[in-house]
Amino acid sequence: MPETLESLTLRIRALEDREEIRDLIARYGPLADTGDGAGVAALWQEDGVYAVGGMGESIGRDAIAALMQGAVHQKLMSDGCAHVLSPASIRVDGDLAIACGYSCVFRWTGEVWEAARVSANRWELARSADGWQVVRRENALLNGSETAQALLIPPVAPHPR
Amino acid sequence: MPETLESLTLRIRALEDREEIRDLIARYGPLADTGDGAGVAALWQEDGVYAVGGMGESIGRDAIAALMQGAVHQKLMSDGCAHVLSPASIRVDGDLAIACGYSCVFRWTGEVWEAARVSANRWELARSADGWQVVRRENALLNGSETAQALLIPPVAPHPR
Amino acid sequence: MPETLESLTLRIRALEDREEIRDLIARYGPLADTGDGAGVAALWQEDGVYAVGGMGESIGRDAIAALMQGAVHQKLMSDGCAHVLSPASIRVDGDLAIACGYSCVFRWTGEVWEAARVSANRWELARSADGWQVVRRENALLNGSETAQALLIPPVAPHPR
Repeated sequence: MPETLESLTLRIRALEDREEIRDLIARYGPLADTGDGAGVAALWQEDGVYAVGGMGESIGRDAIAALMQGAVHQKLMSDGCAHVLSPASIRVDGDLAIACGYSCVFRWTGEVWEAARVSANRWELARSADGWQVVRRENALLNGSETAQALLIPPVAPHPR
Repeated sequence: MPETLESLTLRIRALEDREEIRDLIARYGPLADTGDGAGVAALWQEDGVYAVGGMGESIGRDAIAALMQGAVHQKLMSDGCAHVLSPASIRVDGDLAIACGYSCVFRWTGEVWEAARVSANRWELARSADGWQVVRRENALLNGSETAQALLIPPVAPHPR
Repeated sequence: MPETLESLTLRIRALEDREEIRDLIARYGPLADTGDGAGVAALWQEDGVYAVGGMGESIGRDAIAALMQGAVHQKLMSDGCAHVLSPASIRVDGDLAIACGYSCVFRWTGEVWEAARVSANRWELARSADGWQVVRRENALLNGSETAQALLIPPVAPHPR
C-alpha cells in the first residue's frame, strides 16, 4: 500500500506525540528541583491529580504547586537533590496515553548522594488544545509493596473515560 | 534534492525504528520488576540469548523467563527493587541494530535504596515480522572489569550475520 | 491547512534534530567510561567548552580529551564507574538547541555502587555541517548550591549568538 501525504502525516503525528510526552516527563525533575510550583502544576490538566506514594490522598493542581513550597521539599532542595525520571514506556491511543517508568530522588548527605526515594510511576495523559497534559500521575515507593509493583504492569489500553 | 513520498517514508521509518527499540528497552524494567517472565522473554527472538554479568553462560528465552521466578530475583522483588535502564545510544543498519546503555538495580534496604548492580549493556537487535526483538543482550557489572567497559565501546556497525 | 512534502519535511527534520541530540547525550557516558578522550572531545565543536562543576574554569576540547586520561578519571575507571545521563528536556530553535538533564556518576565501592556525583547539566548545542555538536556544557553538583539549581531553569530560548 503506497504511502500518501495523509498516511505519512499520521505516522509523523504518532512520533510527535511520543516526543512531546517524553519531554513533558523530562521537564518534571528540573521544575521540581528548582521549586517551580506553578511550572510543575502546569504539566497537569486543570482537574488533573497526583497520587504521591506514602503521602495519602490524591492531590489536585493547587496542592501540587504547594507541595514544592512545603517543608519536606524545601528541605530536600536545601540539602541538594535531583528528581531523576527514567525513560518511560509510552502507549498512545488517540487523545489518551499511558507512560510507565521510574523516578529516583537523590539527596546529598554531605558525602555522597543517597537514593532517598525510588518509585514506580504511571502517568495517564490526555491531549488538549494546549498539547499533552497529565490527567493522573500515580507514584509509589518500590519498597516491596505490591501496590507499587502494580503500577508497572503495562496497560492493555490507555485509561478509559 | 527535493524530497518525495518515498524518501520521507524512509526517514520516518528510521525514526520509528529508534522509537520502537527505545520502548523495548524501557519495557524491560517494568516487566522484570513485576516478575513477568513470559513478558521479559518475549522481548527476545526465539533463539535470542542473554549473557548476564556474573552469572556464567549465556541463557536462552526459557531460562530468561525462569530467571524472573528464581530465588535471587524473587528476593529482590520482595525487598523492593527497581531495574532502571538508562537512555541508550542506538545504531540501526537495515534490519539490525545495536544499543548501548546502562542498567541500575536499586534495592530497598529498609532505609534507602542502594545501587546493588550497575552494569554496562549491549543490545543486539533484529527486525522480525513482529517488530524489533533482542538477538543478544550482554550485561556486565561496572566494577572495574575491562570486559564490562568493552561493552560500551560504540560499534562501527551492527552485529554481522 | 493541508500538509505538503515541504511541511512534512520540516516536521520530520524537527524530530530528527531531537533524536540526534538525544543520541549525542547518550554517547557521552559510554565514551567517558571507556576513557575515549578523542571520542568525548569530538562531541564538542572545535571551540566548544565544558564548565565542569567543582573543577574551576571552563575547558576547551583538548582539555576535555585530557580529562579522560587524568588521575581522577582513571581512578574512577579502575574502581568501576558509570556516567549515567538522564533523559533531557530539549528545546530546538533553528540551528541552536538547549538540553537540560541530570548526570549521575556511580562508583563501585567493593560492596555497592555509590552515587559519587549527581549534577545538573545544561547543554548548549549548534548544528554544523557535521551535525549537532556541543557549544557549551555546564555541569554543577546538586549539593544545595543555587548555581547548580539555576542550570535546570528552562530557557525561554536557546543561547543567543
